Amino acid sequence: MKKANKKVTAAIVIIGNEILSGRTQDVNVSFLAKWLNDLGISVGEVRIIEDKEETIINCIHEMKKNFKYIFTTGGIGPTHDDITSKSIAKAFNLSCGYHEEAYAILEKYYKPGEFTEGRKKMAKIPDQAELIYNPASGAPGFIVENVFCLPGVPSILKSMVDGLKNKLVGGKKILSKTISVSTVESEIAKPLEDIQNEFRNIEIGSYPFFRLGKIGVSIVMRSTERNQIDNCSKKILSFIKHKKIQIMERE
Amino acid sequence: MKKANKKVTAAIVIIGNEILSGRTQDVNVSFLAKWLNDLGISVGEVRIIEDKEETIINCIHEMKKNFKYIFTTGGIGPTHDDITSKSIAKAFNLSCGYHEEAYAILEKYYKPGEFTEGRKKMAKIPDQAELIYNPASGAPGFIVENVFCLPGVPSILKSMVDGLKNKLVGGKKILSKTISVSTVESEIAKPLEDIQNEFRNIEIGSYPFFRLGKIGVSIVMRSTERNQIDNCSKKILSFIKHKKIQIMERE
Repeated sequence: MKKANKKVTAAIVIIGNEILSGRTQDVNVSFLAKWLNDLGISVGEVRIIEDKEETIINCIHEMKKNFKYIFTTGGIGPTHDDITSKSIAKAFNLSCGYHEEAYAILEKYYKPGEFTEGRKKMAKIPDQAELIYNPASGAPGFIVENVFCLPGVPSILKSMVDGLKNKLVGGKKILSKTISVSTVESEIAKPLEDIQNEFRNIEIGSYPFFRLGKIGVSIVMRSTERNQIDNCSKKILSFIKHKKIQIMERE
Repeated sequence: MKKANKKVTAAIVIIGNEILSGRTQDVNVSFLAKWLNDLGISVGEVRIIEDKEETIINCIHEMKKNFKYIFTTGGIGPTHDDITSKSIAKAFNLSCGYHEEAYAILEKYYKPGEFTEGRKKMAKIPDQAELIYNPASGAPGFIVENVFCLPGVPSILKSMVDGLKNKLVGGKKILSKTISVSTVESEIAKPLEDIQNEFRNIEIGSYPFFRLGKIGVSIVMRSTERNQIDNCSKKILSFIKHKKIQIMERE
């Protein structure tokens, strides 16, 4: 994979009423964010939006200007509520008939006689779109300009992303170090703020948790520079020791 | 709770780099969406944004016009990365000093001598904000106009929402019925589309799943009208029977 010199950011657009209603717990954001992180791409924003053509079009118009890559999930199946393909086509003023390559893939994927009208709908993909192959269940995703359209089913989505690595140019990989300590946030707020002021290029996050009956705080350092994280980590460990706070976990 | 006549929509804004990096799996969207649904309030959009003042302010400005209620989660703790309070204050041109009532609550909550500088930061809440009480850990959330600011820790958030019911005016409760069937989406796409065209006031969603080694599709009907859902459900059950598709679950 090529490397860009500056920070590369992406946005994720989750298309799906089932996530907005709370019926389905999204897990694609976390998976995609970690996968992109490893490629040196930070997720800058996520939107979860309705299965509504106008909403999808407006969202894509707005976000494609602000982020290098947009990943959408959901809405590329064969049913009436799957409207991502035609909405993306409209967003880019493309037609959305049968995509020759997608049609050929699906025709080959299904047994003779099983390539039904319902299944043919999954070959309706914006004109000129590049396909994203689907080793799990045949029906491809697609790429239009900087917008990558993936399915909503997590196992299928996961099977498809590997093929995308060569199409993305990331920046330096974002490294992180976590120190989890047995204390409450207010005990470490002041020294942590001082350290954040000293290490401007490191993003220091503080996240309280309640796990297995224990309370604690995870201090997370994120940066592209390993040596700066190490120096920052030393400072944090030093004040933790000084305050006699117990370390629960380091990763 | 009072009832509004038309559809009432809310937006959720998740403030937190830890969700965007994929480190933490958000669970607040699903909880809040279901809780709001029960009050007759539909979640129309969710945004997950960075802990960055300008980003928070812009997001609030944009969303407060488009939705009746905005719920934010995260960023109201005592550490340097907790910037929701001051950002919301700026978004509404309010000052953000010690909030008298919040200060009194926290002073009482902590033992003498334990109300430290770090903890005092949690009393810095936009001027004129109404408080949201926190039975789990003392530090309150707050309301400014139509924006409700809650913490990010799920167990604390859950402990706080009950007190909000009287402050929200929802519409008719959104009812739903789910029929999960042992088939693939393309088998049911056409009849489902015909039924959707017949029942315009019902939102019919089709969600494929792979669970415990079985594939299936959940057909979800959502509407405020119970009798319409029942009629729609009958039509769906009828074509399922006709196609000899096995029903896996109904809820």
